[in-house]
Amino acid sequence: MRHIHVIGIGTGNPEHLTVQGIRALEATDAVFALDKGEAKAGLLGLRRQICDRYIEGRPYRFIEAADPERDRRPADYGVAVDDWHAARAALYEGLIAEHLREDERGAFLVWGDPSLYDSTLRILDRVLARGRISFTHDVIPGITSVQALAAAHRIPLHAIGEPVRITTGRRLRDGLGEEPGATVVMLDGDPRFEGLDPALTIYWGAYLGTPDECLVAGRLGDVAEEIRRVRAEARARHGWIMDIYLLLRPAA
Amino acid sequence: MRHIHVIGIGTGNPEHLTVQGIRALEATDAVFALDKGEAKAGLLGLRRQICDRYIEGRPYRFIEAADPERDRRPADYGVAVDDWHAARAALYEGLIAEHLREDERGAFLVWGDPSLYDSTLRILDRVLARGRISFTHDVIPGITSVQALAAAHRIPLHAIGEPVRITTGRRLRDGLGEEPGATVVMLDGDPRFEGLDPALTIYWGAYLGTPDECLVAGRLGDVAEEIRRVRAEARARHGWIMDIYLLLRPAA
Repeated sequence: MRHIHVIGIGTGNPEHLTVQGIRALEATDAVFALDKGEAKAGLLGLRRQICDRYIEGRPYRFIEAADPERDRRPADYGVAVDDWHAARAALYEGLIAEHLREDERGAFLVWGDPSLYDSTLRILDRVLARGRISFTHDVIPGITSVQALAAAHRIPLHAIGEPVRITTGRRLRDGLGEEPGATVVMLDGDPRFEGLDPALTIYWGAYLGTPDECLVAGRLGDVAEEIRRVRAEARARHGWIMDIYLLLRPAA
Repeated sequence: MRHIHVIGIGTGNPEHLTVQGIRALEATDAVFALDKGEAKAGLLGLRRQICDRYIEGRPYRFIEAADPERDRRPADYGVAVDDWHAARAALYEGLIAEHLREDERGAFLVWGDPSLYDSTLRILDRVLARGRISFTHDVIPGITSVQALAAAHRIPLHAIGEPVRITTGRRLRDGLGEEPGATVVMLDGDPRFEGLDPALTIYWGAYLGTPDECLVAGRLGDVAEEIRRVRAEARARHGWIMDIYLLLRPAA
């Protein structure tokens, strides 16, 4: 039976890979690298670099494919995501059937961790539900940008005993809410910080764990403009950006 | 100048260690292993095992110490934690001063990741604020039990685009709240699941990533008793337990 490892590879530092991830890669016949629209050449190159570095003395196949285009401004977000996942399931099914023999092991390399804002596990579940091919799979956890952000700033995510909420830029448009604790914001393609208390403390980071890492921290009202400027410059220079930020309420 | 690595070592599988963590360990002269009350011989043994396995061909010192006792049923939680942190800062200062020379590198090995429900970074900040010794430090992120739980169950933490809240058993006593999204509960020493909707889906795990890993998943109303039974048996057998669970609301 085919077996597939879904491996979290961290945020861009090849040394984020765990020993467990390396062991799985070493047993892999085919590595599948699928790019979302926003994942650019530099990111694909990093996956190749990880394979070259950690799969030693064993032949393997590196299978690249472009993820289907996604409707970026859909009338109905849920339907658009569902259509996109269906197209990706058909693609993944074809790739696995074509490139992985029945007795082989494959690997999907996932940025960060497969459990957080990544759809690989959902897509593989859909492939299995389609019933045309079969495989077993396991998941190997990886360092998320949440942890890489906190590590870079050398801070805990939360005040003592308080909760942490991880959310998206889309959700933050409704404001921070009344819930106590810290808020980590991922996938905010255009952080405007509108409607947020300027007395919040923000810890922002981009390209975390890489030589291009950028960090800004401070009182939101004081550093919001700086973050937008640094972000726009870096994005123009690299052609893409991956960033994340933590918002903490002022101590009571 | 002394330098200290604060290294996240994952949840109990020595292969959760990252390449970055191994590199830091390889450059370490003294490893500090401090046990909280609940961290038992098996856990200390695992830290030794990690050092033995990854620090090759280089002498290092393994410094064990007992963390000060903490008031488990304090009248004022905040004051009790503050007193406890103050005692630990004094202890850590003494250990660093005694066991790490000015030109050496030390490491603190932290379960999971230093950013999530761990106080090592706060204690080191307090040691620096006391001003009697000085050092530089960096943080190396590690796999949290949140990711290990999701990996073991092979699931994303959240429905598409929804937020994730990470909280404590103490906080859950107030119920799930109105906030949308998934809830991960850590540090629940006696999960009773009281006042929670039995239609929630729960994914529970203990000793994640180790050979003793236990997993239960299902509709909360159906599996709550099983989780309490499995948990009590495992705790009696091992003498300690580390567990975590994810609660998902029924699909709308």
